[in-house]
Amino acid sequence: MIDGIRLTKAPIRWGMVGGGRGSQIGYVHRSAALRDGYFSLLAGAFDLDPDRGRAFGADLGLDPGRCYPDWQAMFAAEAARADGIRCVTIATPNNTHYPITRAALLAGLHVICEKPLTFTTSEALDLQAIAADRGLVVGVAYGYSGHQMIEEAARLVADGTLGEIRIVNLQFAHGFHSAAVEHDNPAARWRVDPAFAGPSYVLGDLATHPLYVAQVICPNLRIRRLLCTRQSFVASRAPLEDNATVLMEYEGGAVGTCWTSAVNAGAMHSQKVRIVGSKGSVEWWDEHPNQLRLEIQGEPARVLDRGMAYLHPQSLADDRIGAGHPEGLFDAWANLHCRFALAIEAHEDKDPARLAGLRYPGIEAGVEGVRWVEHCVRSADGGGVWVDYA
Amino acid sequence: MIDGIRLTKAPIRWGMVGGGRGSQIGYVHRSAALRDGYFSLLAGAFDLDPDRGRAFGADLGLDPGRCYPDWQAMFAAEAARADGIRCVTIATPNNTHYPITRAALLAGLHVICEKPLTFTTSEALDLQAIAADRGLVVGVAYGYSGHQMIEEAARLVADGTLGEIRIVNLQFAHGFHSAAVEHDNPAARWRVDPAFAGPSYVLGDLATHPLYVAQVICPNLRIRRLLCTRQSFVASRAPLEDNATVLMEYEGGAVGTCWTSAVNAGAMHSQKVRIVGSKGSVEWWDEHPNQLRLEIQGEPARVLDRGMAYLHPQSLADDRIGAGHPEGLFDAWANLHCRFALAIEAHEDKDPARLAGLRYPGIEAGVEGVRWVEHCVRSADGGGVWVDYA
Amino acid sequence: MIDGIRLTKAPIRWGMVGGGRGSQIGYVHRSAALRDGYFSLLAGAFDLDPDRGRAFGADLGLDPGRCYPDWQAMFAAEAARADGIRCVTIATPNNTHYPITRAALLAGLHVICEKPLTFTTSEALDLQAIAADRGLVVGVAYGYSGHQMIEEAARLVADGTLGEIRIVNLQFAHGFHSAAVEHDNPAARWRVDPAFAGPSYVLGDLATHPLYVAQVICPNLRIRRLLCTRQSFVASRAPLEDNATVLMEYEGGAVGTCWTSAVNAGAMHSQKVRIVGSKGSVEWWDEHPNQLRLEIQGEPARVLDRGMAYLHPQSLADDRIGAGHPEGLFDAWANLHCRFALAIEAHEDKDPARLAGLRYPGIEAGVEGVRWVEHCVRSADGGGVWVDYA
Amino acid sequence: MIDGIRLTKAPIRWGMVGGGRGSQIGYVHRSAALRDGYFSLLAGAFDLDPDRGRAFGADLGLDPGRCYPDWQAMFAAEAARADGIRCVTIATPNNTHYPITRAALLAGLHVICEKPLTFTTSEALDLQAIAADRGLVVGVAYGYSGHQMIEEAARLVADGTLGEIRIVNLQFAHGFHSAAVEHDNPAARWRVDPAFAGPSYVLGDLATHPLYVAQVICPNLRIRRLLCTRQSFVASRAPLEDNATVLMEYEGGAVGTCWTSAVNAGAMHSQKVRIVGSKGSVEWWDEHPNQLRLEIQGEPARVLDRGMAYLHPQSLADDRIGAGHPEGLFDAWANLHCRFALAIEAHEDKDPARLAGLRYPGIEAGVEGVRWVEHCVRSADGGGVWVDYA
Repeated sequence: MIDGIRLTKAPIRWGMVGGGRGSQIGYVHRSAALRDGYFSLLAGAFDLDPDRGRAFGADLGLDPGRCYPDWQAMFAAEAARADGIRCVTIATPNNTHYPITRAALLAGLHVICEKPLTFTTSEALDLQAIAADRGLVVGVAYGYSGHQMIEEAARLVADGTLGEIRIVNLQFAHGFHSAAVEHDNPAARWRVDPAFAGPSYVLGDLATHPLYVAQVICPNLRIRRLLCTRQSFVASRAPLEDNATVLMEYEGGAVGTCWTSAVNAGAMHSQKVRIVGSKGSVEWWDEHPNQLRLEIQGEPARVLDRGMAYLHPQSLADDRIGAGHPEGLFDAWANLHCRFALAIEAHEDKDPARLAGLRYPGIEAGVEGVRWVEHCVRSADGGGVWVDYA
Repeated sequence: MIDGIRLTKAPIRWGMVGGGRGSQIGYVHRSAALRDGYFSLLAGAFDLDPDRGRAFGADLGLDPGRCYPDWQAMFAAEAARADGIRCVTIATPNNTHYPITRAALLAGLHVICEKPLTFTTSEALDLQAIAADRGLVVGVAYGYSGHQMIEEAARLVADGTLGEIRIVNLQFAHGFHSAAVEHDNPAARWRVDPAFAGPSYVLGDLATHPLYVAQVICPNLRIRRLLCTRQSFVASRAPLEDNATVLMEYEGGAVGTCWTSAVNAGAMHSQKVRIVGSKGSVEWWDEHPNQLRLEIQGEPARVLDRGMAYLHPQSLADDRIGAGHPEGLFDAWANLHCRFALAIEAHEDKDPARLAGLRYPGIEAGVEGVRWVEHCVRSADGGGVWVDYA
Repeated sequence: MIDGIRLTKAPIRWGMVGGGRGSQIGYVHRSAALRDGYFSLLAGAFDLDPDRGRAFGADLGLDPGRCYPDWQAMFAAEAARADGIRCVTIATPNNTHYPITRAALLAGLHVICEKPLTFTTSEALDLQAIAADRGLVVGVAYGYSGHQMIEEAARLVADGTLGEIRIVNLQFAHGFHSAAVEHDNPAARWRVDPAFAGPSYVLGDLATHPLYVAQVICPNLRIRRLLCTRQSFVASRAPLEDNATVLMEYEGGAVGTCWTSAVNAGAMHSQKVRIVGSKGSVEWWDEHPNQLRLEIQGEPARVLDRGMAYLHPQSLADDRIGAGHPEGLFDAWANLHCRFALAIEAHEDKDPARLAGLRYPGIEAGVEGVRWVEHCVRSADGGGVWVDYA
Repeated sequence: MIDGIRLTKAPIRWGMVGGGRGSQIGYVHRSAALRDGYFSLLAGAFDLDPDRGRAFGADLGLDPGRCYPDWQAMFAAEAARADGIRCVTIATPNNTHYPITRAALLAGLHVICEKPLTFTTSEALDLQAIAADRGLVVGVAYGYSGHQMIEEAARLVADGTLGEIRIVNLQFAHGFHSAAVEHDNPAARWRVDPAFAGPSYVLGDLATHPLYVAQVICPNLRIRRLLCTRQSFVASRAPLEDNATVLMEYEGGAVGTCWTSAVNAGAMHSQKVRIVGSKGSVEWWDEHPNQLRLEIQGEPARVLDRGMAYLHPQSLADDRIGAGHPEGLFDAWANLHCRFALAIEAHEDKDPARLAGLRYPGIEAGVEGVRWVEHCVRSADGGGVWVDYA
């Protein structure tokens, strides 16, 4: 049960890079971090425009002196304060994730970062090494994984309810960019510009979400090889794709598919994860995240609901309100931030025992997302060929 | 768009009565009030047990000196402070709503109160008179009305899309109390004890929610007479009902029904509101609150989604995140609290113009809920007879 | 399993009254009766216009000599033939059901009749007496009851899965007559003319369907009293209603509601039956008749599918095709006609043992439907008052 | 409107090979062919066991003299009769489809055949040449294509509602064979034995259904190349697959996927076809075939229902009953058989004009299914490589 009583000793002094005026994702980060008192927002470099950033910070109630013109200034100044921030969230375009995260880690800050963590696996591994060396947490914003039914699905796999896992079907395919909306919408423009977005659009922006959800549910699956084709149905987006399909073969014989799209015209999110085992399947849909469909072969399909006593205690640990009441995206993100805070405190206290059983998207998840996209792009650009996964 | 930037001049200094350790609804109130910075929690009389209440307040980070042993002490002490609270939320059992709200108003505090506001209409009217006299806001916790699709439904009625309203079908019928769970569950026990719950159980506790939602959607409908039958399927609950059905006839010829139950075995909430007009209908289901079903006779049924550009700007004003992402109960409650704050500021500034178009469940809604339950009980206890509504 | 192999000794020689050119329901009857070889269509008085009726019969491949100008001629001529029909289906407007059925029974014919069987209970009881006296079957066209999931629901009630039945919620509320379509549509006109339709429109035409379905599922429930209100939202339909709500109280404490409408704008059928017991509920929706929702309090909701091995053998007896394939209305009607034929043969062989366990809508169901409508109309016309059910 | 009035001059004299006692699909064929009087069953070689076949025919009411021990005898004897059959349906295991169809065509018979038509494309083309040469119809049992909403989807593509087609997503993935049920179930055994089933299991048995549906909806799409992987999760089924995924690239840039499985544990059919265009999408699900989901980007999703006046007249031509009433698989099959009969008559009358607009799965559809499976198997057995489609 999450009820507003903080389980850590104190709020984490926290800052943000990006996420300023007009940023929707910035609000999501703040709402999640501040919701249950685990983080305290004290500093920010919110905007490329220093004045606008400072005004925005003031609107949020920050000390104007801690609203910095850029992250370099923030990291330096905060490091010099006894009460400086201990953690920073990075909500900037993709191309800046690597240098800012690297600098933050080198400045001794825990990091919560938007995905993709970097453009290349080697960059991601570099961050992983630095974080490990310094005992810092890097949390990655795979927000959907904070939904309690994902935990329940993981439990059903772990306890053998589904039998041996055979098939993983992933989908995140919306239709909002069926036309070239980026021509009129600056917020969409950088996502289809490789200079800012990196080597992919929908693979990195959308598909890594269900990919991580599947990793949470099936932690033992290892991709052996994959094949990807990608398309730019709005031609001006090339070389970045607005639609892609990935085939995956796992060690041990399981197989997987992933369809991701921004041109699935008329669809909302349609992010769906279906895990098929030898005895049964689970299916989860992010637009109705409080339900999990459990289908055991030969039995009636079951609809599991959030908050019900038949769920695993670990799933119920994230409950905020009685069953029947819908929880949404903001609640899932807030759940993740509780865990980020717990992980940060455990790291600072050098008490790894407290991390046992604390599942959250850390640097490994960030690395894996980058690696997966890298392989997908390599496959696709090679003509849709199989590439070994390593 | 709600994005964490407060639209009022300052957070409202705020306190709570009840809602202490173990109270789920207390957390919902705090989460909603604090979410967007509109309220600042400074004082509380959280618990009948003063020590426990003080410890709880401390856990929330309050000044222990402002964690009071009871509401009488709180109202007195806070009134004496220059920086005393301006608003109090009352999250206590039903039987205390009237005296505490009355005292709070007399102490010059705005009030946010759990429903039912009182046990009798005359009590509710008494509160209404005091609040009017002193220019104070009384917000009632009809949280579902904060969902953006309720606003959209109201717009579809207002703009004539549905034609003339003919039928109002309301339902809030769960199954969690199919058995006598109150025997083992203290939190459920007071709800079926008339001394604490008042003259009804499910009529007041559940049915008033869709009733208010329907009032928001169809503000022009006036009940002419109603008929209610109620049952205590778990016999020990008598005279309080765990199931009831209400028939309503409105001025002008429209008719309505309401089914409310705590013994609808196996159901989650199943709170549904269907409004039928001469041309079409809307239907909303609280478990999937981001969708609104619009059915125009002779056309394909439409599923409207939260956040989409085809919605009314007023509906979109409550958006926190792009379409497709599910918002949940906590978001709806937070939306309401933004409006409570705006209403409180407008009252304090004596600027009624700012209240224009600001729809929130105020004292009128509270009075109406009490009046409706009173009529239902009178009808049911008279043998299920028609009673004129006045 | 129904697979086209007839379980009776021979097809039943069969005729029709009404159901001629342009009659949709006539086709449904023929399709159902002929589908599995249980009936053989040999005679007909299809039309008020003798020439058109004869031409229609010829198109169906009938001997023109057995295409009669009216039912009087048919009953007389067929009775005189050694190979005359043994059974007749009556698919004419409501006002003719009683005299034609009476004449058919007196001519020694088994009857399959559209509902309502008659306008008054006393007429219906008259038919029941005649049928009983002569050992004839009267089947009533409650076609939905032929869906296999209705049988399954009945089994779940019978075996105690739902516990003690508490609540029966019935609904058949479409929107096709939201406007006065009868002005342009002759086929709809007679349904709102008391001379042809009888004392009710939607109560008799729609509501008796879920009423019978509920009787099949809960055969032990007996109505103690009921209350009905009815409206004519299209005013020219008065005194016949296009919308009605019924409250029912059963012997033993269970309660029920029924909403029926032809002005539920935008809705398709929305015929739904929900039976709530002390432990769980079942819910069935005629537009998706292959599924039955089973909700046991405290367990995940289950979706049962037609044809699955977990169903009761009696339910599976009606299967025509493997699970997953949708069966529809025509299949349900055909299932009923298999049973009508089995019942007719058992009656002719004077072998009542064969009727054991053979559930079909017989004369009792026909009587009950008329009685229920009669009470509803009495209640409604009395101002929406309780009337004892007898 | 289909109402039992035959649109052809006379019923087609018709026989069957296979489909005898215990055959579910045999019943489906008979039910569909006989439903509306277009075919008259006069002869059969129903069983490998002549006595059993004869007894079965007698149970169906056939002249025992026309219940033959094998198809060779039937084709010879019927050809010698003036009133011999004109059409034969072949409902036997896959390995026999080619020789029997070939012999039937050479005997001058129209053929309705189960899929797959043959094991190889060259065999299928051989049949096509013979049929063309003799002016005979070969209908293939792609029964789902008879659902009226498939026609509607085709109209929405044809009239440009969806814009330019970009993505075709196909799925037919049930879970009934998650375990090795064939060990205990003879009816399942031959399907996983290459000697009887041919080069594939689920690709041919399941996937060709949505493949044909998609061809009906998008008649202008031409596959350019495809890639397939297939698995035998129940190892004893190898080399036949119980799960497969296919990627398709079409001429002009559209792409497609197909997932087919018999080990999608817990799923019923889950046959779904989604067609995505530049403006909108349609989606159809065979378990609820009376609905078609139409999603136009930027507009609310629409649910179209069978029988509604807003559908295309060509879609409505297949209607048998008013909107709201569910039609099922048997109705769809019967619709197809009406067209088979119309096509046969048009061929016999050498009146090709009557074929204009008469869409049915003919020999081209049969050839295409075989060709597609052949390419899939070649790709899969080559290691999941791209193969050009020709």
